[in-house]
Amino acid sequence: MPTAIHVKRLNSSDPGFTEILLSSLSLPMADDEAIDAAVVQILAQVQAHGDAAVLDYTKQFDRLSVASVTELEISQQALQQAYEGLAADQKTALDVAAQRVRAYHEQQKIETGCHSWEYTEPDGTRLGQKVTALDRVGIYVPGGKAAYPSSVLMNAIPAKVAGVSEVIMVVPTPDGTRNPLVLAAAWLAGVDRVFTIGGAQAVGALAYGTKTIPAVDKIVGPGNAYVAAAKRRVFGTVGIDMIAGPSEILVLCDGSSNPDWIAMDLFSQAEHDELAQSILLCPDASFIERVQASINQLLPEMPRKKVIETSLTNRALLIEVKDMAEACDIANQIAAEHLEICTTDPRQWAEQIRHAGAIFIGNYTSESLGDYCAGPNHVLPTARTARFSSPLGVYDFIKRSSMIEVSEAGAQTLGAVASTLAHGEGLQAHARAAEMRLK
Amino acid sequence: MPTAIHVKRLNSSDPGFTEILLSSLSLPMADDEAIDAAVVQILAQVQAHGDAAVLDYTKQFDRLSVASVTELEISQQALQQAYEGLAADQKTALDVAAQRVRAYHEQQKIETGCHSWEYTEPDGTRLGQKVTALDRVGIYVPGGKAAYPSSVLMNAIPAKVAGVSEVIMVVPTPDGTRNPLVLAAAWLAGVDRVFTIGGAQAVGALAYGTKTIPAVDKIVGPGNAYVAAAKRRVFGTVGIDMIAGPSEILVLCDGSSNPDWIAMDLFSQAEHDELAQSILLCPDASFIERVQASINQLLPEMPRKKVIETSLTNRALLIEVKDMAEACDIANQIAAEHLEICTTDPRQWAEQIRHAGAIFIGNYTSESLGDYCAGPNHVLPTARTARFSSPLGVYDFIKRSSMIEVSEAGAQTLGAVASTLAHGEGLQAHARAAEMRLK
Repeated sequence: MPTAIHVKRLNSSDPGFTEILLSSLSLPMADDEAIDAAVVQILAQVQAHGDAAVLDYTKQFDRLSVASVTELEISQQALQQAYEGLAADQKTALDVAAQRVRAYHEQQKIETGCHSWEYTEPDGTRLGQKVTALDRVGIYVPGGKAAYPSSVLMNAIPAKVAGVSEVIMVVPTPDGTRNPLVLAAAWLAGVDRVFTIGGAQAVGALAYGTKTIPAVDKIVGPGNAYVAAAKRRVFGTVGIDMIAGPSEILVLCDGSSNPDWIAMDLFSQAEHDELAQSILLCPDASFIERVQASINQLLPEMPRKKVIETSLTNRALLIEVKDMAEACDIANQIAAEHLEICTTDPRQWAEQIRHAGAIFIGNYTSESLGDYCAGPNHVLPTARTARFSSPLGVYDFIKRSSMIEVSEAGAQTLGAVASTLAHGEGLQAHARAAEMRLK
Repeated sequence: MPTAIHVKRLNSSDPGFTEILLSSLSLPMADDEAIDAAVVQILAQVQAHGDAAVLDYTKQFDRLSVASVTELEISQQALQQAYEGLAADQKTALDVAAQRVRAYHEQQKIETGCHSWEYTEPDGTRLGQKVTALDRVGIYVPGGKAAYPSSVLMNAIPAKVAGVSEVIMVVPTPDGTRNPLVLAAAWLAGVDRVFTIGGAQAVGALAYGTKTIPAVDKIVGPGNAYVAAAKRRVFGTVGIDMIAGPSEILVLCDGSSNPDWIAMDLFSQAEHDELAQSILLCPDASFIERVQASINQLLPEMPRKKVIETSLTNRALLIEVKDMAEACDIANQIAAEHLEICTTDPRQWAEQIRHAGAIFIGNYTSESLGDYCAGPNHVLPTARTARFSSPLGVYDFIKRSSMIEVSEAGAQTLGAVASTLAHGEGLQAHARAAEMRLK
């Protein structure tokens, strides 16, 4: 007989509800001093010794012994072969996913202003911004059990759509085991070069460059605690994406959904990781009971039931709320990575949401569709950072330069203003530089 | 008789030129362990004790002793009085600067896609992104000698243009000394609340919130080493802007400019800070000589000549290049914060520039006009980070949420794809969640 698990229940009218909720969301910071110290050492070795250090660490950590880093590069031909060798259904699924992710990000490039612009003032002064793509981007792809081809698509395609000239992927292949789906995804996404290296040594190689591996301008993609620590350390030398926390889903229900669907959506976060968090907000207590029943009924059939059980027991919440309006208020406080709105007329509630990484609207929009093939990016802000940050997008692979061309006439009016303000700040060379341009 | 200073000279044809150049750009990382340890302590105290800790540190560091944090708030009326009390020319200059910065950033809001968007596919599936402004932003403004009203405008105006509901400014006032220009700028920029606190304690108060000071979602603005260390530490709890390094200017000349203007533009970076860096690239050796002569002639008249002399002696470079095309190539390697193009037909060279924080085009566009009143932001990427980052802008005060609404028909086609890919990644709950929506 399967073990029944009991998910923690809260009611928004409980005394101290907000404090309990917020403390349930937070995890202790994973500032592991030992990992950080090891990473500092690895980065220093890679910076000092380049290829030789990369070879040493790859031998040590991935048990992969080769004579030169060039042997760790996978050719475009090998990537294509991996793709050609896929089963027909996998090939089609990857094709559809890549095509849809590309189409969405092409629209995003248009809509989010990834273009240069300029305007001219009456005196001839021209002001604007120039947009350029990053020259070279590194994508970290985890190896081993958490090797996700979908992540290759989600990280590489926006970079290529943005116009990045060279996308360099690193993926560890412990004991030389390569994942054909990951290589096929790299080929489909248009990744330019692939090296089978990983860990902090791969981050260091991308940040500083070696004889064989070119230095990049930004490093994106998920990784373990060593990779995360290395990304934090090289930030400034290169750009990085957000350091992601455990995955989260928040489901808003009015009680009109199929409880099995809701239970499975909660599972689909929980199965990622013991620390993943699944939360349901619902004004209908009897529906919450039905979801709890579905959880117990469906759990035994899940291959990853151990992970799901630990995650749901330790971190999930089923919260009874006053009404859907209150559910939206609480959702804005949580600022979840994934937010599902499973109600009748879900748009009215979507309009109330200000803070979420992605909003999945209506009962047919399972979060897993967004993970793979709806089109929007699955790299999303976690740990309440949706209050101030955005999904990974084309905008992360471009940058802007201000363009300022002051006319001779403009230099007269602006020069007087700048001179006054510069003197007010005690910066007389600034003032003189403006004054020298006055007639 | 004034001391002649000799600025370091390089030629792009020197052996090892690129290595010499790149090593001249870098500064040792200012990772001061003692500062970081002090900051960790201050942040922990503020998080644990709120207002009481803020009062203690303000008494200790700013010699300002009050009974409650409410006494450290400056009223809107006091801000307005500071503005009304300015000399007429200062008031006008600040008005013009605020109006121009606002106009530029309003155009930026339109051009850089700070709007929600959505498209509908043939099967009724709707995809897009929702844009929302951040709820609450904190602006750090340094006190004392480096109190810059222009920085108040440059940080607060883009936030207000973006639609941030509440902008909270902190500015230390050591011994209670308030800078009327800074307060006037806060009033003009529409800052909602001002607290006279500073240092790591102010960063902590904004990040965690206290009884009196509300927690914000992002903290921007320059500060000393303690403020920078505190911002690094609270990143993740709140968003932060870039940690700025010393200011830099790179001037590209073809030899057709007034050498005095060029010398003064080099001074205007050098006067900020002994570590600031000024570089000239020019194919005309005789023009470089004339700039060197202007430097020696103009330096004695500069009130901040000590700072300028140290900066130019230790960090400036006058580089002779083969031609302007090579100058542009080198400029792209340097990726300077400020890039001036002082040539005939400067637009042709501006087109060659891919990496720079701001590009100042033509002899009349002194960098100091951009610092104060041209309109574009003066908060710019330093230390070669213009390779991957942008000027502070309206886009830093908004964030995006993906919007995904899959139709019943869409769930059939996408569900099959997601199921295949999820099984390929070993995530069966993801697959089941998609499969359950299949008819």
